[in-house]
Amino acid sequence: MVHQKFQEQSIVVPPEDLYEPIEYILSMGGKRLRPILMVMGANLFTNKLDEVWLPALGIEIFHNFTLLHDDVMDNAPIRRNKPTVHKKWNDNVAILSGDAMSIKAYQYIVSCDDHHLRQVLEVFNQTAMEVCQGQQYDMEFETRMEVSQEEYLEMIRLKTAVLLGGSLKIGALLGDASPGDAQLLYDFGVNIGVAFQLQDDLLDVYGDETTFGKRIGGDIVSNKKTYLLIKALELAQGEMQAKLVLHLNRKEFDPDEKIAVVKDIYDKLKVKEYSQKLMEAYMDKGIGCLEQVSVDACKKKELFGLVERLLNRSC
Amino acid sequence: MVHQKFQEQSIVVPPEDLYEPIEYILSMGGKRLRPILMVMGANLFTNKLDEVWLPALGIEIFHNFTLLHDDVMDNAPIRRNKPTVHKKWNDNVAILSGDAMSIKAYQYIVSCDDHHLRQVLEVFNQTAMEVCQGQQYDMEFETRMEVSQEEYLEMIRLKTAVLLGGSLKIGALLGDASPGDAQLLYDFGVNIGVAFQLQDDLLDVYGDETTFGKRIGGDIVSNKKTYLLIKALELAQGEMQAKLVLHLNRKEFDPDEKIAVVKDIYDKLKVKEYSQKLMEAYMDKGIGCLEQVSVDACKKKELFGLVERLLNRSC
Repeated sequence: MVHQKFQEQSIVVPPEDLYEPIEYILSMGGKRLRPILMVMGANLFTNKLDEVWLPALGIEIFHNFTLLHDDVMDNAPIRRNKPTVHKKWNDNVAILSGDAMSIKAYQYIVSCDDHHLRQVLEVFNQTAMEVCQGQQYDMEFETRMEVSQEEYLEMIRLKTAVLLGGSLKIGALLGDASPGDAQLLYDFGVNIGVAFQLQDDLLDVYGDETTFGKRIGGDIVSNKKTYLLIKALELAQGEMQAKLVLHLNRKEFDPDEKIAVVKDIYDKLKVKEYSQKLMEAYMDKGIGCLEQVSVDACKKKELFGLVERLLNRSC
Repeated sequence: MVHQKFQEQSIVVPPEDLYEPIEYILSMGGKRLRPILMVMGANLFTNKLDEVWLPALGIEIFHNFTLLHDDVMDNAPIRRNKPTVHKKWNDNVAILSGDAMSIKAYQYIVSCDDHHLRQVLEVFNQTAMEVCQGQQYDMEFETRMEVSQEEYLEMIRLKTAVLLGGSLKIGALLGDASPGDAQLLYDFGVNIGVAFQLQDDLLDVYGDETTFGKRIGGDIVSNKKTYLLIKALELAQGEMQAKLVLHLNRKEFDPDEKIAVVKDIYDKLKVKEYSQKLMEAYMDKGIGCLEQVSVDACKKKELFGLVERLLNRSC
């Protein structure tokens, strides 16, 4: 249904160069996870979903705006198996189309009813600002040698998880949930979001290239300080530590060799297992929040099912 | 008073690298024209200005966000006699700080009372989108040989003028003006805005480097299709036309010589006078709108005075 609502919308108006890239990135598809969460969040409390569709599109447009600008900042060539906007057009087109998308996102977000407008905007503004903070930390960590587990988890909370929590909370508010229930859904989303990102990091190393849509091992090649690397640096000792640091510091290397060596170290240190355990802890905490939401258990089935599918995915 | 309100605000929160550039560009000063217009717009209709200050800061933050991203896109090294953010830091910092500023702008804009919120957001969203469209046309015109007067005037309406109109209209709405009066103030602002940009183009050629804060002749060096150049291309014939086209097409040239030659052609064709006449026509139209606003003439004195000072400026 969310996918269908997307196809019905077309936001092409002149000048073409501003809107074509917006259509392009939105047409790439993706899971539409955030709008789905918003609609499901509302659907826990109401069957009248008319008011939710446009804000749900808004949250997806906002998410894609952040992807578009992140791709410029990370100089990423590929997104969902296609050239990124700044590669297909250029940096300026990507910057300006992103700016237009962020405003377009607001136009959709504010199309809720007047009596929800203030609350919805407060959640959305705070969430949007935190996503920027998360991206800033992510970039900072690239040039910092030492990043702690706590710092990493806070970064992914801001960059990824709060937008899932915010989507659910806005949905809940649009469904006239109590403040307590809206907050529980937010906490559910944030915890599931951290779990989701930990899994994304795992898939970057252990996933399948075709279904994942990105090159496997990219995080290893770029020394991205994921939980896996941070944990490996904490656990490695002696010869293994020296080997890991050597490969991290090499300026010139064969990417496939580096991936193989680092993966081997990960395997020996069992960082995959540590990461999976942490992921499960966040998942359990999130599920605990959803269980406390004061609606019939049968209404929560769909959200539980979604979490189940999300965290057992291969792409 | 607007300047004082700015000094009272500090929006530094972690991470520093995200907010330092925001503080930096906001501390550069400037005329604070847009927030002043918003406050003056409200003050025509009410003496209670408490509700206006924060949205007025929001509009200035939004304006500075557009300057920040425009400087990245134009690769401009200097803004108000200081290094631009992307030169002092780097492109990524400028992109992300700009994104955060646009959200911060919304946070201030929405701090008006509930009963104004919807109207204010509608004006702001539409205006913000049009500013992006204006920047897109501006960039497009750089690589297009032919730009008509109409296209140029539409571009500056979108890129510059609507934000002046929008500031005044939001002020009027916050002062509970009638829809008719709010629209008249918008039209006043848009017409004054076009006049203001035409003057800016004139100052780029005929202004004083120190007070203007930018290098004189920059538009000539970069072949920027201002009203002056468009008019000169329309009027020049024979030898003069050949000379102008030759200097526009040269890839390697002495900037000072190019400025002198093109300025000489402008003088002979009297394009300065054409531009001044057009500027005055927009000014008169704007003033006509302000005159129709249904409040006592004495209340409009300050706005008339501001227009007078703005359009007789040398910087």
